[in-house]
Amino acid sequence: MNLLQVCVQACSLSFVVFIRMHLTYFPGIDLIHHSQADILLEVPAEEAAHLKVLRLKPGDTIRVTDGTGTIGEAEIFNSTGKQYLVRLTNVQQMPPKTYEAHLIVAPTKNIARFEWFIEKATEIGIDSITPVWCEHSERSHLRIDRLQKVAVAAMKQSLKSRLPVINVPVKLDEFLKSSQTPGQHFIAWIDDSVTGHLKEAVAKDTPVSILIGPEGDFSKREVDLAQFNGFQAVSLGKERLRTETAALVACHIVNLIND
Amino acid sequence: MNLLQVCVQACSLSFVVFIRMHLTYFPGIDLIHHSQADILLEVPAEEAAHLKVLRLKPGDTIRVTDGTGTIGEAEIFNSTGKQYLVRLTNVQQMPPKTYEAHLIVAPTKNIARFEWFIEKATEIGIDSITPVWCEHSERSHLRIDRLQKVAVAAMKQSLKSRLPVINVPVKLDEFLKSSQTPGQHFIAWIDDSVTGHLKEAVAKDTPVSILIGPEGDFSKREVDLAQFNGFQAVSLGKERLRTETAALVACHIVNLIND
Repeated sequence: MNLLQVCVQACSLSFVVFIRMHLTYFPGIDLIHHSQADILLEVPAEEAAHLKVLRLKPGDTIRVTDGTGTIGEAEIFNSTGKQYLVRLTNVQQMPPKTYEAHLIVAPTKNIARFEWFIEKATEIGIDSITPVWCEHSERSHLRIDRLQKVAVAAMKQSLKSRLPVINVPVKLDEFLKSSQTPGQHFIAWIDDSVTGHLKEAVAKDTPVSILIGPEGDFSKREVDLAQFNGFQAVSLGKERLRTETAALVACHIVNLIND
Repeated sequence: MNLLQVCVQACSLSFVVFIRMHLTYFPGIDLIHHSQADILLEVPAEEAAHLKVLRLKPGDTIRVTDGTGTIGEAEIFNSTGKQYLVRLTNVQQMPPKTYEAHLIVAPTKNIARFEWFIEKATEIGIDSITPVWCEHSERSHLRIDRLQKVAVAAMKQSLKSRLPVINVPVKLDEFLKSSQTPGQHFIAWIDDSVTGHLKEAVAKDTPVSILIGPEGDFSKREVDLAQFNGFQAVSLGKERLRTETAALVACHIVNLIND
């Protein structure tokens, strides 16, 4: 995104605010600790390239996060054009969330559709995603690093302080046998016998895990296994949704209930 | 989509049902009239190509719609491989909808994002879309024929009987001055002063029109003009959403309220 685009996005705000609108991500850095210790921080190379495009210089302020609920500001202390050193000026830990949205989704055959889900769910609000391989899955590999890049870009775009956790893909059977996620557990699949709607089943202020199947849907055996393991069958409405749409709709419902 | 994919999609169903899972679209054809008059119909060329891929032959049954709420079945009467003649066997007019979702959206700079919105909104349920040019729009042209193709593909994929109407793009000011759409009218934009959530404002069984601005959001003048013309300001939640995400989220809320 260039400066003009940033300006258009923020249209009526002052330039100082434009700079703050750009969120710089420091993965794996404890910003609270660095802020308290008043330690100068080097901006990661990828993020430094953005600052260069924005033509930021010493004295300018940027907005920062480490993706774990920490948000703050930093003043550019020194810059060589490639390397930026910043001093954290105002870092806060956001209050813990009262709920969690965990989507367990079979990756789509067309990976762009799964990446789209990651982007949109990050914007709307999602805490963790577990890709699962199912009997009818039409895909068997996944580049988690690529998905993480999509999530980081969406987190920065929507100025969020939390980066969703994207778990390592796992076979659905293994997930069901080993998972001990807290809160409510749902499985959404296409079946006329399922009448209870997710919007009426989700409780406020509660962690929620929702299973979404592949293009060929879950097998009968998988549905039985999920229900045996405490996943309650729910409907997402009367429409026939693609995998990635169903996953996003489910994620949006959890957020709407808690919004 | 090839036969194998169709089979995987429908996994546990019989082959006859597989064929019916493929929806064939007859634009501009009054299927009810043709059904009653027992007139043989020629399948449009683009759709005929799909039937060829599915290797359908005389005697096979397909599912048909004209996109105006009509759904039915047709038996293939004759086929040359390129040309298919069908006889309608069971055509019904779906009951009228009790509500309508009309989204008035500024097309995104990246047209793929707008097309994505059209696809997903069609799946979830939308009745009409009016693209509008705003003061901060970063795009000034639109290929409606391309958007219509996206909507047709999504309608067929999700086995719907209604094709959303995509209106000709219009300047926001002109839309506001000339529009006489019935029901409720909302404008969603990014402003801390807007506190009422769309989910609490939408009435059941009512036509709803919702304005969504471009990447640079509406100008103050546009917001004032919309409010002067009866559009009520609403929030879509506390998250910062992209244009196409905001439009989809608004569309989903209208459907959830009526589901």
